[in-house]
Amino acid sequence: MRKIALFDSTLRDGSQAEGISFSVEDKLKIVQALDTLGVSFIEAGNPGSNPKDLEFFFRSKDLSLQHAKLVAFGSTRRRNTKAEDDPNLKSLVHAGTSCVAIFGKSWDFHVTDIIRTTLEENLAMIEDSIRFITESGSEVFFDAEHYFDGYVANKEYALASLRAALAGGATTLVLCETRGGMIPSEVKRITQETIALFPNVDFGIHTHDDAGCAVASSIAAVEAGVVQVQGTLLGFGERCGNANLASIAGILGTKLGCDCLCGESLERLTGICRRVAEVANVRISGNAPFIGKSAFAHKGGMHIDGVQKNPHSFEHIDPMVVGNERRLLMSEVAGRALMLKRIARIAPNLDKDDPVTVSLMDELKRLEAEGYQFEGAESSFDLVIRRHLKMYRPYFTLVHYQTIGSSPYADPQSGATHAAVVKVKVKGESAITAAEGEGPVNALDRALRKVLEQFYPTLTSVHLTDYKVRVLDSAGATASKVRVLIESTDGKESWSTIGVSKDIIEASWFALSDSIEYKLIADGVEPSGE
Amino acid sequence: MRKIALFDSTLRDGSQAEGISFSVEDKLKIVQALDTLGVSFIEAGNPGSNPKDLEFFFRSKDLSLQHAKLVAFGSTRRRNTKAEDDPNLKSLVHAGTSCVAIFGKSWDFHVTDIIRTTLEENLAMIEDSIRFITESGSEVFFDAEHYFDGYVANKEYALASLRAALAGGATTLVLCETRGGMIPSEVKRITQETIALFPNVDFGIHTHDDAGCAVASSIAAVEAGVVQVQGTLLGFGERCGNANLASIAGILGTKLGCDCLCGESLERLTGICRRVAEVANVRISGNAPFIGKSAFAHKGGMHIDGVQKNPHSFEHIDPMVVGNERRLLMSEVAGRALMLKRIARIAPNLDKDDPVTVSLMDELKRLEAEGYQFEGAESSFDLVIRRHLKMYRPYFTLVHYQTIGSSPYADPQSGATHAAVVKVKVKGESAITAAEGEGPVNALDRALRKVLEQFYPTLTSVHLTDYKVRVLDSAGATASKVRVLIESTDGKESWSTIGVSKDIIEASWFALSDSIEYKLIADGVEPSGE
Repeated sequence: MRKIALFDSTLRDGSQAEGISFSVEDKLKIVQALDTLGVSFIEAGNPGSNPKDLEFFFRSKDLSLQHAKLVAFGSTRRRNTKAEDDPNLKSLVHAGTSCVAIFGKSWDFHVTDIIRTTLEENLAMIEDSIRFITESGSEVFFDAEHYFDGYVANKEYALASLRAALAGGATTLVLCETRGGMIPSEVKRITQETIALFPNVDFGIHTHDDAGCAVASSIAAVEAGVVQVQGTLLGFGERCGNANLASIAGILGTKLGCDCLCGESLERLTGICRRVAEVANVRISGNAPFIGKSAFAHKGGMHIDGVQKNPHSFEHIDPMVVGNERRLLMSEVAGRALMLKRIARIAPNLDKDDPVTVSLMDELKRLEAEGYQFEGAESSFDLVIRRHLKMYRPYFTLVHYQTIGSSPYADPQSGATHAAVVKVKVKGESAITAAEGEGPVNALDRALRKVLEQFYPTLTSVHLTDYKVRVLDSAGATASKVRVLIESTDGKESWSTIGVSKDIIEASWFALSDSIEYKLIADGVEPSGE
Repeated sequence: MRKIALFDSTLRDGSQAEGISFSVEDKLKIVQALDTLGVSFIEAGNPGSNPKDLEFFFRSKDLSLQHAKLVAFGSTRRRNTKAEDDPNLKSLVHAGTSCVAIFGKSWDFHVTDIIRTTLEENLAMIEDSIRFITESGSEVFFDAEHYFDGYVANKEYALASLRAALAGGATTLVLCETRGGMIPSEVKRITQETIALFPNVDFGIHTHDDAGCAVASSIAAVEAGVVQVQGTLLGFGERCGNANLASIAGILGTKLGCDCLCGESLERLTGICRRVAEVANVRISGNAPFIGKSAFAHKGGMHIDGVQKNPHSFEHIDPMVVGNERRLLMSEVAGRALMLKRIARIAPNLDKDDPVTVSLMDELKRLEAEGYQFEGAESSFDLVIRRHLKMYRPYFTLVHYQTIGSSPYADPQSGATHAAVVKVKVKGESAITAAEGEGPVNALDRALRKVLEQFYPTLTSVHLTDYKVRVLDSAGATASKVRVLIESTDGKESWSTIGVSKDIIEASWFALSDSIEYKLIADGVEPSGE
């Protein structure tokens, strides 16, 4: 089995992404997670440029890692100085990692126009700096910055930069597609041509996603013969990000039959990605390949039908292989099969050709045409089924609600802006109460739960965790239809409900009252409405 | 210049993405945006499976499109029936588009195990169905579903499916990588081998992003000779999504020198993507290639230094080419420059180092931290500047507003659910009035304009054209902060305003009153508040 080493730079290149910033504690947690996954190298910072990074390297000495080697990152020495006098290189040695990544310029334009030195001096900077580190006892990877653009502009000079690195003692030459704009076929051609010139040298690849091709370019470089792939687990990085190592691990493991996780199983991939996202306080995009929540979610009717007959039909791999799971979504495009399955959970004996089933399907289509969307609101969906099948006795009946808001508000000290009055009938008894809130929905939510808790004490544990509003057909402006989605929890389970109306208060009311009814049904509470 | 036709399926395959659902109005807006961009084909729905899609096709007949042709999408006839009896094929003809996409099976496993018919019958289904549509006068593109997996499993059968489509009269053969798991080098090889067998036929490519390679595979297929690329503008689609056409357009236009926008400039790419995202109520990921907010944002010190010396050093293209902009994150130089430009429009003589400018910048930052976002609300931005510079006398002062909503509502015949009372002072005079509406914001909007029109008759021409709500930090549920964006028009100009509050009514009030003040300033009406 071909071995590929993954080199993760979440903590270095990744922290150059907009909105990403790690504490030392965060970094330690991420290192542990990456090591558990089976990454070979973890580039953890630039000790010369950042005191926080230096602190990290000291504290990391207590970590006992199973697979990964920590890598400190830094640039070549400044022009016209000696390596041994360079504070940046000295702090790399000071950080004490067994591997160091040194980056230097391979593109003549960058040498002359950006760092502004001679082409000869730049080669000397590469060779000297690498020699200084190797002589301190660490292994050096050379990051040939802008290698691909450099190769196109001045091939001989780009190659000379690699030779300088080898002369200094670098063990791996990492070809960097720093601007991220090159298409994979070019990356592959240049990688192949380069590797052919250095038969016994190990090569790596480092790409960016500015053309949306970083994963593909990395895979193309593996096809061309590199043995190390650099990237960041979730694709964090400067501008459009670095190559996404989760996708690369998925492809290497499931398509190319490589071992890129030091023998560890891919099954932990999704879980570890979610843990790293948690630490970084970032949401993984639902459609992220391999690890996203929607990566194996099926919505189209034909897809759902196909997957139920044989998952192979619309899934490129078994989701379990990467620790993810299959989901079948509700929607107008999902078709009958899924709806029938959901109905069967509630009424297992109902035939699919029964007129009741047919009319229920019509009811669901009508609601979807009105703007209901049950995909994220399965609990409301279940209630629609129960009501239609008459398997439902109400827990309460609304007599009347009223919301009153004003500015300025009568009691400015309260922080509230609205009051709500709710009157309900339960077990033949009427009850009325009021509550205040920040906005009308907040007030209504409080008043509704307050008036019902006396009858159904189980509701005291319920609170809302999410509230979303979407204006449908917004050209109707303030008279447009509004869809409200609510997520509730009792501390153990969570459930989602929906309401649609031209009146945002009424839409919220539908979602709020569904939420409460769903909880009471789930708890097996005896209905006692009217 | 090589021409490539882009085929957008946002409204069909895109609506199969989790969380995406379009109203007929949304669809019409997206069609207009895609046509303006220069897309050649817009696949707008499956009229046979969905009454909303059929309605769309009828209403779309009034659109006058510059570049794009609308395409209706549907499957081959059912097994063992006649094409002319197939309700799905009949509704495709009924939809009346000049192009139709027919999808059929190219993978023997899908024929035998999923649709469960014989290999011969499937070929007849493809040929008959396409002939039925072409004989009705429409051009047919054949979507060879699962072509690549089929080619690997049973090459002869996959090719036979293409021959059947040609026999039926299809003008373009679209090779579909339906499961999305194939790497680009395989996609390229199979595309090349296939095209070589059909020398005078037009080919298209349709890929999915399950391995994170959909863009690269599409580009590989263009290198292999296809003339049509299918995808969705923002990558929406089943599971991990379809190939992202924004990235593909960026690459084709800036790397491969192709015209893929019917001669239109790429400069509108970013703006149109943001408009489509707005309609879909989806946020474009910051790191999206070409169009993301961070796509040309530089954070690392060395990157910022490089870009300031020569943007070419760390940018693969000039951001203006795709209508995006450079941002320097550390220094916030870009942010300041833009704000100063806007301030200068209102107060051209104000120096950028004036303490008033500095405190105004602080005020703007404070508002942004609170959740204001002036990108789509330039009119509110201008009002903030005027208020801060004391270049502002109010047109009216709010004494008090109140909204009262109830269910059931006092007057069920009215269609209203809420009443609003607004009391203002104008020119020393007090005025109070009330109005009803569908929901509290609608009532407040009506009451505010009603009470002010007597003082400012120019307001009679104003009405709202758009109303959007976004819950910020939604974990606070119904007590979360809400951002309201309003678009207003007087029939000639349109302008956008914003409000942020925990109370949706108050947030709406801010945006409504800004809208009215902006109109009065724009008309040069003499302020007469207090």
